[in-house]
Amino acid sequence: MADLVRTGVSLERELLKRFDKVIGRKGYQNRSKAIRDIIRELIVEEDTDENKIVAGTLTMVYDHHRPNLADKLIEAQHHAGSKVLAATHVHLSHDYCLEVVIMKGRSEDLRRLGDQILSLRGVKHGRLVITTTGKNLK
Amino acid sequence: MADLVRTGVSLERELLKRFDKVIGRKGYQNRSKAIRDIIRELIVEEDTDENKIVAGTLTMVYDHHRPNLADKLIEAQHHAGSKVLAATHVHLSHDYCLEVVIMKGRSEDLRRLGDQILSLRGVKHGRLVITTTGKNLK
Amino acid sequence: MADLVRTGVSLERELLKRFDKVIGRKGYQNRSKAIRDIIRELIVEEDTDENKIVAGTLTMVYDHHRPNLADKLIEAQHHAGSKVLAATHVHLSHDYCLEVVIMKGRSEDLRRLGDQILSLRGVKHGRLVITTTGKNLK
Amino acid sequence: MADLVRTGVSLERELLKRFDKVIGRKGYQNRSKAIRDIIRELIVEEDTDENKIVAGTLTMVYDHHRPNLADKLIEAQHHAGSKVLAATHVHLSHDYCLEVVIMKGRSEDLRRLGDQILSLRGVKHGRLVITTTGKNLK
Repeated sequence: MADLVRTGVSLERELLKRFDKVIGRKGYQNRSKAIRDIIRELIVEEDTDENKIVAGTLTMVYDHHRPNLADKLIEAQHHAGSKVLAATHVHLSHDYCLEVVIMKGRSEDLRRLGDQILSLRGVKHGRLVITTTGKNLK
Repeated sequence: MADLVRTGVSLERELLKRFDKVIGRKGYQNRSKAIRDIIRELIVEEDTDENKIVAGTLTMVYDHHRPNLADKLIEAQHHAGSKVLAATHVHLSHDYCLEVVIMKGRSEDLRRLGDQILSLRGVKHGRLVITTTGKNLK
Repeated sequence: MADLVRTGVSLERELLKRFDKVIGRKGYQNRSKAIRDIIRELIVEEDTDENKIVAGTLTMVYDHHRPNLADKLIEAQHHAGSKVLAATHVHLSHDYCLEVVIMKGRSEDLRRLGDQILSLRGVKHGRLVITTTGKNLK
Repeated sequence: MADLVRTGVSLERELLKRFDKVIGRKGYQNRSKAIRDIIRELIVEEDTDENKIVAGTLTMVYDHHRPNLADKLIEAQHHAGSKVLAATHVHLSHDYCLEVVIMKGRSEDLRRLGDQILSLRGVKHGRLVITTTGKNLK
């Protein structure tokens, strides 16, 4: 804790106001601690050895009326082969589906598959959650 | 974009170094833009009206040898009633399971269920992903 | 048991031979009892009031290379609306997927959705399992 | 088709009446064809080499209030190891859950796991569907 450094960020006043509201609700006393925590969280999520075997889920919401999108999603998952363990799909509304893909494999491969799927047109929102298996869990 | 303000964060030198490495790999040119993006992402995730109907997934990894944990997970999900749409389970290893719970309901209720499940002993890692449905998607 | 009647069936000799082998392995002493049991099972599965609310699963194996099949499967499920609770998909091989659709609704509607999906070209094998909820379970 | 043989079955008059009703609704013109079809279906399901690799699903409905049942279900699935690909769970009512376990492995092993799970107290109804993969599909 001794060796602290300081860095800064410029952002829209409106964004900062909403950020303060969110972190206040979460019980933070000051902004610095809150930013430090989300930086740390990003690192936990991203700073894994690319060759490490991890488990992960990819949550996405998509418009099932978009032609060929379901075909492309299946295709991308099949192409990824044994990295995709299962996918579960629910129908949220007349237009939207939510699908969660469960994966296991090299961290690098899971990220690539995530990026590939989330970039498909018609996929509205998506989020990759990486976790680890066995004793490295924390 | 006009009305920019500046704020700062103090953090361990080591943490900042790892952060720079991660954002470099993600293609960021500077720290300010990266911090702004994760702040924005937090807001999208957190700054929802508590009564708004959202969809979400809860990813968790747990030790299935922990006595009664499976019973408690089922119990918590049943107690949440119609907010839980489905849960999919895969077996990661001799000891660990990964389970994803798909939910829809008031944002506040999903967060509460997430917190409750993640606080159970034996649940090693968990992450709630909140998304929205319909035209508020972005 | 008193009021027994007798009915018959004509079938290929080869089919009968395989049937005898299967029921022998299952421990049946005679054909009549085995046929009676599968007739009874069919009735349990089929002879439900069309308006009764039941739960069911539809298991299917399909060739994911068939163009537009994934789109049609999603479309059929969405069209069925709230009757489809969730669907889980695994990748069996380079060519084949297995998907299980979990449903709840009027027995008649579940059967119709099952028939509709199983008749799509590229769906190789499928089976609807109907079960009941609550105290009618047996 | 040439080499037809005839066999018979004795059954309760009431059962036969219900059978006729069911097959009538399914569009059968005569009983013999209907019995032949369910015999054929049984053979497709059962007459697999015990060592053949097949895919299957196990659908079950259970009372989640039964103590330790969820633990036992997880335990049985983990013990089966890589034969269990995924399991999806929905909450049918205050008391009952429906779970579908997706499996791949030796036909014999899948049947054994199915029998073991369906014999647990609190599991109300269950059904194993065996299908095959690749070119043996019909």
